[in-house]
Amino acid sequence: MLSFVGLGLYDERSITVRGRDTLRSADAAFAEFYTSRLVGTTVDHLETTHDVDIVVRDREGVEQRPEPILEAAADGHAVFLTAGDPMVSTTHVDLRLRAHDRGIETEVVHGTTAQTAASSLTGLQNYRFGKATTLPFPETHDGVPESVVETISANRERDLHTLVYLDIDAADERYMTGDVAADLLADALDGGEGSAAPPGVVVARAGSDDPVVRADSLPALAAESFGPPLHLLVVPAGLHPLEREALATLAGAPEGLLD
Amino acid sequence: MLSFVGLGLYDERSITVRGRDTLRSADAAFAEFYTSRLVGTTVDHLETTHDVDIVVRDREGVEQRPEPILEAAADGHAVFLTAGDPMVSTTHVDLRLRAHDRGIETEVVHGTTAQTAASSLTGLQNYRFGKATTLPFPETHDGVPESVVETISANRERDLHTLVYLDIDAADERYMTGDVAADLLADALDGGEGSAAPPGVVVARAGSDDPVVRADSLPALAAESFGPPLHLLVVPAGLHPLEREALATLAGAPEGLLD
Repeated sequence: MLSFVGLGLYDERSITVRGRDTLRSADAAFAEFYTSRLVGTTVDHLETTHDVDIVVRDREGVEQRPEPILEAAADGHAVFLTAGDPMVSTTHVDLRLRAHDRGIETEVVHGTTAQTAASSLTGLQNYRFGKATTLPFPETHDGVPESVVETISANRERDLHTLVYLDIDAADERYMTGDVAADLLADALDGGEGSAAPPGVVVARAGSDDPVVRADSLPALAAESFGPPLHLLVVPAGLHPLEREALATLAGAPEGLLD
Repeated sequence: MLSFVGLGLYDERSITVRGRDTLRSADAAFAEFYTSRLVGTTVDHLETTHDVDIVVRDREGVEQRPEPILEAAADGHAVFLTAGDPMVSTTHVDLRLRAHDRGIETEVVHGTTAQTAASSLTGLQNYRFGKATTLPFPETHDGVPESVVETISANRERDLHTLVYLDIDAADERYMTGDVAADLLADALDGGEGSAAPPGVVVARAGSDDPVVRADSLPALAAESFGPPLHLLVVPAGLHPLEREALATLAGAPEGLLD
């Protein structure tokens, strides 16, 4: 049996009770932190909290050499832990299919995600979000990829908000911050005279006790700092009255920004 | 202090550890189950499990008469519980803003959501979902509303999957099932000769120990039954190879369906 368990958004308490029970009753526990990380805790602390040993696998150790995981799951009950929901990344779907190929039963124990938090913390309505996109570190793409601009523009044409995930280099503990993202997008989305860039909403440390949510123009956000990671950014479309009020009250949107 | 705590997807173990700790340490606990429900448990069982008293408020008791909730939050630490994530519904954003108006501090403790589960259980990639939609009971709209068809079509034009939430009448414990939804959509999405309706994927009891995931043509799904609620339905766009394999392996998609 192979249980994919989501650790949720932020620290050792972001896991669900079902996930925690599953982890504690397993014979072996593996984890990967290359697709994302729990910024609010450490592997040591997870092990102490749940009284388990956790074997952390790097990308190659999951994608190229999953044998130890599959063998543990064939011999007993193994758990595979990831930040957020355990199936958000394709690499985990692939591991699940490999387990099925061998006749190993699998289950998914869901976790809380940035996607939910982006809507929930900002007051922007869930059903008004279009396709999400990821903004990569600028050096990897020589600036903002055209696909990011296209996704935001296509959503805005349909009057839909866009969640922009910010790039993570988990191995080097490097995280794109909201101010850097706002700076990149302020240039990329600036339509020139008479067509200013849209506003932005930065969410920092979703799932923690002290999340920060700030709405402002992209150039203004580019000049702020939002504290420790993870950060994400939302580019809103037209706002409904309650959304406007939420951004003013919960995200400190300056008067006039949202008119 | 007013803590909005998400109970997650299915039963008393779907809450996060942070959410459970918040609930147990609060001075007063309120809940609403008119926007959604935890099908896998009861209020009594939630109370016993967490050793708390929960006051369930109906829609009027939240939207028109929130006084008891706001007073408890002004006097001490109150918790407001909802299925899923606590801020998915506009009515809760409104309650949060009312608390802020009175100078009451608020926090959000996220829960797992159907949106995450729809992607996670099907193997359909998260970033390929467009705007979601809700299919209402047919008697309330004389069939399928044009807006539902438009959302699915607009997503498919951009090669994006659509999550279709199925209507809930929580007060009467009436839930639209996947077969009924598939039947409605098979007709509504049938483009006539040479343009057959797209396939569908039904997900039943996400977050439970025995979720069901089934991919087939919409008419075939309309002839099946998927057991107890809640159900939801995904209308996929074009499939990537791994998504195709996931639907075949995890959702029993018949050969030829996905070509």
